[in-house]
Amino acid sequence: MSHRAELIAVGTEILLGNIANTDAQMLSERLAELGIDVLYHTVVGDNPQRLREALELARTRVDIIITTGGLGPTYDDLTKQTICDAFGRKNVLHPELEQWLRELFAARRRPMAESNLQQAYLPENCTVFHNHNGTAPGCAFCEGGVHVLMLPGPPRECELMFRTGAEPYLRALSEGVIASHTLRIYGKGESDMEAMLRDRIEKMTNPTVAPYAKSDECMLRVTAKAETAEAAEALLRPAVDEVMAVVGEWVYGVDVENLESVCVARLKARGRTLAAAESCTGGLIAKRVTDVPGASAVFLGGVVSYTNGVKNRVLNVPQSLLDEYGAVSEPVARAMAEGVRALTGADFGVSVTGVAGPDSDERGNPVGLVYIGLASAEGTVVRERNFGKRSRDHVRAQAANTAFDLLRRTLG
Amino acid sequence: MSHRAELIAVGTEILLGNIANTDAQMLSERLAELGIDVLYHTVVGDNPQRLREALELARTRVDIIITTGGLGPTYDDLTKQTICDAFGRKNVLHPELEQWLRELFAARRRPMAESNLQQAYLPENCTVFHNHNGTAPGCAFCEGGVHVLMLPGPPRECELMFRTGAEPYLRALSEGVIASHTLRIYGKGESDMEAMLRDRIEKMTNPTVAPYAKSDECMLRVTAKAETAEAAEALLRPAVDEVMAVVGEWVYGVDVENLESVCVARLKARGRTLAAAESCTGGLIAKRVTDVPGASAVFLGGVVSYTNGVKNRVLNVPQSLLDEYGAVSEPVARAMAEGVRALTGADFGVSVTGVAGPDSDERGNPVGLVYIGLASAEGTVVRERNFGKRSRDHVRAQAANTAFDLLRRTLG
Repeated sequence: MSHRAELIAVGTEILLGNIANTDAQMLSERLAELGIDVLYHTVVGDNPQRLREALELARTRVDIIITTGGLGPTYDDLTKQTICDAFGRKNVLHPELEQWLRELFAARRRPMAESNLQQAYLPENCTVFHNHNGTAPGCAFCEGGVHVLMLPGPPRECELMFRTGAEPYLRALSEGVIASHTLRIYGKGESDMEAMLRDRIEKMTNPTVAPYAKSDECMLRVTAKAETAEAAEALLRPAVDEVMAVVGEWVYGVDVENLESVCVARLKARGRTLAAAESCTGGLIAKRVTDVPGASAVFLGGVVSYTNGVKNRVLNVPQSLLDEYGAVSEPVARAMAEGVRALTGADFGVSVTGVAGPDSDERGNPVGLVYIGLASAEGTVVRERNFGKRSRDHVRAQAANTAFDLLRRTLG
Repeated sequence: MSHRAELIAVGTEILLGNIANTDAQMLSERLAELGIDVLYHTVVGDNPQRLREALELARTRVDIIITTGGLGPTYDDLTKQTICDAFGRKNVLHPELEQWLRELFAARRRPMAESNLQQAYLPENCTVFHNHNGTAPGCAFCEGGVHVLMLPGPPRECELMFRTGAEPYLRALSEGVIASHTLRIYGKGESDMEAMLRDRIEKMTNPTVAPYAKSDECMLRVTAKAETAEAAEALLRPAVDEVMAVVGEWVYGVDVENLESVCVARLKARGRTLAAAESCTGGLIAKRVTDVPGASAVFLGGVVSYTNGVKNRVLNVPQSLLDEYGAVSEPVARAMAEGVRALTGADFGVSVTGVAGPDSDERGNPVGLVYIGLASAEGTVVRERNFGKRSRDHVRAQAANTAFDLLRRTLG
């Protein structure tokens, strides 16, 4: 029997919109990998009665309940007692957790407020999940065939506790596996994918293929269920090949993180280096490349040339080009890419200059107009794009995406 | 009577963790401003039966239901028919929407797939919300005292439709207002705030004061309910003053976006300019500064010096310093800040050099060790921090935050 889960987040700050429920996304992704169907996300405030009702409903419709939040020492955290009440368990002091807490504070040379001791209370006879990123332990117990797991709310604590505590607990419950491959696509949207693949999507049952929109790109997930990981993989392989035959041109990677990690991996594989000259993206390309662990092996550095002075003095963009064509132009994009390549000695110099908005530039170039350059020993190419007026963030993100897509296609 | 709302998001892609339910955060924030209490967030998949059950439950516990998602033309969108069934309304073709759709596609010179016509169907006798960012209209209707609002899932479409359609609809329902001020804090955590303010928090009822953790910082929200905005503001002002008297040192702004927007605003107000030299943050500081609209008035540019070669050749960090102290050191942070200030002619040069991880550097400096420099006409200061081993993202974000906090304190 496959397991069905509900995620219940407890936190008025989520209902007020102060923070997003990112734990739900992270947990959903992990649970899908474990073959556990997530049927509901629920968010309630720091309100014992509504939490109690949510728990009572959840136990009628799923067999795994995972709560996030409400384990900390602060004033408004009442989750633990409510869960204990709902499932008829005592909330008891776990002496080994008290000792751990006292040692933790001592090691940090900080006095421990007595309210912190609340965190050493957990339901009796539970499986304790240690918190390696904070002070609130979590736990799991099973009551009447329903597994209840309690995880902390802060995303760093929640994620690590899931991996080290909850995942092993859940793996022990699961039978069969669900495996999937995710094809990442840039330059075509969800509805285009759906139109190109509709016949295949409709006739497939196992594996299944589903397109998803994901901010500025889209993805196709191919998913199979089987008794073993090997059997699932054997089902997946021909399905992925079939899909790639139709849309492969747009797929920048399978089971990859993002465009920049593909670029870093390909640069590494080919022993090549990169530098970036950025105007309207303002450091976004450098930031995204250096988000990738190990980027230092291939990324030499970059220049954020937000003014013409920096373009000219640091990147050696000729003043005459800036005067004649303006900063947002094909010739300046070309000179920036070549300039940063020469300055750093990188194999590839990428450049972006454009109008991110909110206002058009002093030459009347419209918001959304961007030039993306790529210089290498083989010469320099420049792409002109207009990403429209949606938002500054959108224009900047798409400019960076286009630069990465150009680089990954060039690297082959 | 104050209104109570439930947000129901429809989308298997949310339950699979492919996307986060960011619409819920955006809507919650907006609804709080309108004085509407959000009591629940619920997410169900593209499953008519479970959506139907969620709707039946919601109508028993709130008087405003807002659904997001499931209005588009693609294969798995079944929301509209299910809502119509649950509330006993016919799903009918709205001829003016059909005409609008056909004109939209004609203007874009794209053929219109017949599946798009589904988007012109909405419940009969509803208030239509036009979609200025996409092709799926939304709507609102009232049945048995419960208001049902249907908004599209893509965040850009959802947000704009909320502002232009749903918000005016909801404003007409509301009585009284809730107003709040948010104090943004860097350098102290939620539990510190709670401990410093506990007595006040416990005795306040209107206004109320509540601390919230928000990734790497925390905030205090002071909230008042009153008949008018003016009356609410009159309640808020003394409460904010009282809180500021206790924790003001740590408050970097009230009702501000973030640290970088405070820095940009203060630089503008004082007519000063900024440049950044970044090693381990890899462009994050420049990216965050240029996220702020209008940053070009104060930000001249930056150098991402990911290698010693770039530090030396572009920023003029003496090779002898790099050899003697290594890249991650107080003298190099100092030379980077001064170097980028000289290179760009900015009033302030900020620098970061450190070990973001995952590995310690070749000199054995631990992950998390960062030096943050700030150079100005008054001289140069350097701060040493150790942000620990939590994650690369955490170290980078905290290094940037510390740089911004140092700058805003210096700007006064």
